[in-house]
Amino acid sequence: MNVRITDKFWLPRIEQTVRQGIAYQWKALNDEIIGAEPSHAVENFRIAAGESDGKFHGMVFQDSDVAKWIEAASFGLREFPDAGLESAIDSVIALIGRAQQPDGYLNTYYTVAAPDGRWTDFAFGHELYCAGHLIEAAVAYYEATGKASLLDIMSKYADHIDRAMGPNSERTNLYCGHEEIELALVKLYRVTNEERFLALSRHFVEERGKQPSFLREDPGFGNGHKDRWFDLDYHQAHAPVREQEKAEGHAVRAVYLYSAMADLALLTDDATLTKALQKLWRHVTTKRMYITGGIGSQGHAERFTVDYDLPNDTAYTETCASIGLMMWAFRMLRLEQDSRYADVMERVLYNGAISGISLDGTRYFYVNPLEVHPDVAKYRYDMQHVKTERVPWFGCACCPPNIARLLASLQDYVFNQTESEIAMHLYAANEAKFLVKGRTATLRTETDYPWNGLIHVRIGLEQATEHTLSFRIPSWCREPRISVNGEDVRLDQVAERGYARLSRMWADGDVVILHWPMTVERMEADPRVHENAGRVALQFGPMIYCLEEADNGGHLTDIRLNPDANLTAEFRADVLGGAVVISGDAERADLTEWQDELYVPVRRKTVRTRVQAVPYAFWNNRAPGEMLVWIRES
Amino acid sequence: MNVRITDKFWLPRIEQTVRQGIAYQWKALNDEIIGAEPSHAVENFRIAAGESDGKFHGMVFQDSDVAKWIEAASFGLREFPDAGLESAIDSVIALIGRAQQPDGYLNTYYTVAAPDGRWTDFAFGHELYCAGHLIEAAVAYYEATGKASLLDIMSKYADHIDRAMGPNSERTNLYCGHEEIELALVKLYRVTNEERFLALSRHFVEERGKQPSFLREDPGFGNGHKDRWFDLDYHQAHAPVREQEKAEGHAVRAVYLYSAMADLALLTDDATLTKALQKLWRHVTTKRMYITGGIGSQGHAERFTVDYDLPNDTAYTETCASIGLMMWAFRMLRLEQDSRYADVMERVLYNGAISGISLDGTRYFYVNPLEVHPDVAKYRYDMQHVKTERVPWFGCACCPPNIARLLASLQDYVFNQTESEIAMHLYAANEAKFLVKGRTATLRTETDYPWNGLIHVRIGLEQATEHTLSFRIPSWCREPRISVNGEDVRLDQVAERGYARLSRMWADGDVVILHWPMTVERMEADPRVHENAGRVALQFGPMIYCLEEADNGGHLTDIRLNPDANLTAEFRADVLGGAVVISGDAERADLTEWQDELYVPVRRKTVRTRVQAVPYAFWNNRAPGEMLVWIRES
Repeated sequence: MNVRITDKFWLPRIEQTVRQGIAYQWKALNDEIIGAEPSHAVENFRIAAGESDGKFHGMVFQDSDVAKWIEAASFGLREFPDAGLESAIDSVIALIGRAQQPDGYLNTYYTVAAPDGRWTDFAFGHELYCAGHLIEAAVAYYEATGKASLLDIMSKYADHIDRAMGPNSERTNLYCGHEEIELALVKLYRVTNEERFLALSRHFVEERGKQPSFLREDPGFGNGHKDRWFDLDYHQAHAPVREQEKAEGHAVRAVYLYSAMADLALLTDDATLTKALQKLWRHVTTKRMYITGGIGSQGHAERFTVDYDLPNDTAYTETCASIGLMMWAFRMLRLEQDSRYADVMERVLYNGAISGISLDGTRYFYVNPLEVHPDVAKYRYDMQHVKTERVPWFGCACCPPNIARLLASLQDYVFNQTESEIAMHLYAANEAKFLVKGRTATLRTETDYPWNGLIHVRIGLEQATEHTLSFRIPSWCREPRISVNGEDVRLDQVAERGYARLSRMWADGDVVILHWPMTVERMEADPRVHENAGRVALQFGPMIYCLEEADNGGHLTDIRLNPDANLTAEFRADVLGGAVVISGDAERADLTEWQDELYVPVRRKTVRTRVQAVPYAFWNNRAPGEMLVWIRES
Repeated sequence: MNVRITDKFWLPRIEQTVRQGIAYQWKALNDEIIGAEPSHAVENFRIAAGESDGKFHGMVFQDSDVAKWIEAASFGLREFPDAGLESAIDSVIALIGRAQQPDGYLNTYYTVAAPDGRWTDFAFGHELYCAGHLIEAAVAYYEATGKASLLDIMSKYADHIDRAMGPNSERTNLYCGHEEIELALVKLYRVTNEERFLALSRHFVEERGKQPSFLREDPGFGNGHKDRWFDLDYHQAHAPVREQEKAEGHAVRAVYLYSAMADLALLTDDATLTKALQKLWRHVTTKRMYITGGIGSQGHAERFTVDYDLPNDTAYTETCASIGLMMWAFRMLRLEQDSRYADVMERVLYNGAISGISLDGTRYFYVNPLEVHPDVAKYRYDMQHVKTERVPWFGCACCPPNIARLLASLQDYVFNQTESEIAMHLYAANEAKFLVKGRTATLRTETDYPWNGLIHVRIGLEQATEHTLSFRIPSWCREPRISVNGEDVRLDQVAERGYARLSRMWADGDVVILHWPMTVERMEADPRVHENAGRVALQFGPMIYCLEEADNGGHLTDIRLNPDANLTAEFRADVLGGAVVISGDAERADLTEWQDELYVPVRRKTVRTRVQAVPYAFWNNRAPGEMLVWIRES
């Protein structure tokens, strides 16, 4: 399968990310961005390699920023070959190789700053986490270029890990506090076919959560994190993975674990893992997910809290957690082709994930709240994690390279292919080639998605072939229609778990037209989400909308949508680089009525007003100001 | 002036506080309450006196708990003589005397735990704060019993302070980070007539906020409090007091300062101080006060934040801050007889102050939020200051004795008397004696307030006297009426700044009937308070109401009052020891509609329901559960 994104919405973003963003991030990793927090990540490798003096600087997991950058850059090279970039990657890989210790160990923090501390702090040391990201980078670079340089380095490190704590080692009860190595080892297995890497991944997953947990005895456990939000559940280590009833703890850790579990369920055909994942999926998506697809509502410990606790203004909803939820969703689709996974994947992608990067690709949000009052958020102690404007870089810079690798690999999320079926999950215009029954098949998809739900798919085949083409029917669509070569398809006859499964003898030149009409939807939340009571969120197609001060003035919570008002959607080329905006009638208080009284008997004096909503993902790309997703209505 | 409360609402509370509560607190201060956090406050004095071994335990201001207890107990003795209690006070006063150092210094923390640290940490050391509370205790005990034992001890200490940092000392730029000594020295001056105590109070107020501030150089400044919420404004030290435009910082500190400023403005006839106070009053009450009268919206640093930032579920609104606001309001009334002060005093008293103590007088709230979802509040990191149920005592136990001294001295807040006028601010049934033109006048007030706005005042006079009797016209009352001896008074002719001023030749047996009809009011907040948009608070007379889970089930934010629904108020002897409850029609979501979807297109499927609201001050006296003041309406 080879997919080239040609989409008007995505291609400029991807191209910007690959051509400018990745170069920008390379500068950031080399501390060359004026005004940004210094990274020192590359310099750490130089110091570890003995090629520079100085001290380790940054987070204990600073290596992973370099790893994610290599991975993102490698993804980019697949569609945008760039000799200069490839050369930069080669040189940093060589540097990484020189920083590797003779026994295979590779981690700049422990090599430079705490050489005696190796493998002592599994809760917060992030050694296996960094190894995982470097493995993912190695696989991506190998797949993009065929060069095995980093793959060799990381295979050697993986073997070191296997000897130190693998199933045949002397310390078999260990695993990393921050999951990542598990899914990375699966990838390493996939490209190397070395069963020991798959076994090591499975070993880490199976050990996780056994009680009593070695983490409690780990000298790093609770190191500076003595409160209960950093207890075993923070690490998803409170119970064996199959016995975990609810998604708990650090949101990124959780979805990285679940992603690895899904990989293992598939590769080892383990139905008990699948069942555990289905339970966790249902829990997250029906109790603990924002409408933007964001997860992890609390800033302290970056974690899940309790069911239905989804505050809008203190939301954490880390960009990386959104990306991790997409990763998990995509892996669930391989286990079970059900649109509930792809619907969430789309929800996250168009909302809580890309909200993390500015339209011009140079500024980022780590935290993605659904309601921001800048004066309050800048002052309040409990909102210090909220940034009221995107920033150029972070001291803890996990999100920028994570979003870069997502965008640079977006083509990998569009389809799944099995022996008998090609399934399309996401509707981005693209040109895709598949091998079907030994012959090349092409799908050429054209669409103005997400601004319009009309999608043309033209099939190219060397010869007519019987096969199944499946298309996700978006759950937001009220009147989905499909035609093949101009003939309407009866969806009730072909729809299966949210997919229109078209099984037929396909011929060259066949055209499938998907019509998912987009309408403005007022969405309401489960009444147990108490912040959203009486409020609605506007949705158009896959996109969630918000009010911004730039369009509507301040005091946005004061605005009340008229429940009967016509809400119209219109594409506006002049707004935010081109976007559908939603307009409608509303009312708001007449502030001139309010002078020197804070509380008065209700006067219900309002004035009529027009409101304009823009895609949530695009907020804060104009003037700074308030933003609100959940709008009062009733 | 001598006032005896005879009120059905207040007298049982006062009697409970004096007869049981003060005894209970005495046990708490002596660590005799099982299950309560130990106080050690009395033991600290024993150690300081050399009569016990052991280490100082508790907050650096632990002495003030003993002081406030003595003050409360002394207030209680005035109406409820109790030889045992008086003897206990005498013995603790003797102990305090033995803990006093030969040079007059008196503070158990510094004497026992940090003898070299005296007068080095003005920001957080609380030495002058503790001195202030002990002075207030000394004055109260003297006024209750005529015994000067503690007054002598504290005069000696005040002289020590005057020598160390008074206007004629070598260190004239000092003042306490936590205001309290200022208002205490005014009281000391009032009973001793020693001008130097008044001068010392004025000196502390005048030095406050001069720049550059000595506090920045104070080694204790920022000690463990290095963040910006503990900057100079936390101590109201960011500008000279007359230049402070807004109420900033720690809420209790602020209102204690303003109380002292009001005392000084009156005693020194300083119009510039009065003007500054009027500005601050307007700021607090129109921008930063909850409808319950609570102030200080942020838990971190227990402080004011920014204008209109009045979150309900993370509100701090410390009980002591409410009491401090009453203290300030009462002092403003002496400067300026305007009902805006007394209206707020009443608002605080009946709501945000007495919410701090349970109906049975044995459990307390330190923090008084306006919305509580126990499952969320118990879990969330940013709600750890919120207790979902009252507790028997606190490690930082400032509030319990503070509320005891308020209740035990409530009679002092009812009236003001000047040469020509007696003004009634609060409507509690009472028997009051005044000296008017050299003769005794009595007022006998009967009422079922706050459940009914009918108030009978019978005048007793030795002989007919021309005088002014003034009665506050509550701002919540839509149709106030007054009659004198059965004849209606035209309020438009006698109302002046919110008071009905009745000037006439009063005769023995005259009867004034005040009729302030109470109706259920739906109150709305300024639209800039964004949490309250579309919501109303119910008020009946002076009391703010809330919904409790005990009456209405859970998920209270889901309840929407019908805007046109009739809300009825009814006195129910069987509810909460007797209270007016409010009932009305409302709607709420049909939760059976909500199964496995977190977000759906609006269905607007609701079911009709009845709601019952109870006084906010009485919440959490039945089963634990949710509570909500601001109810959705539109």
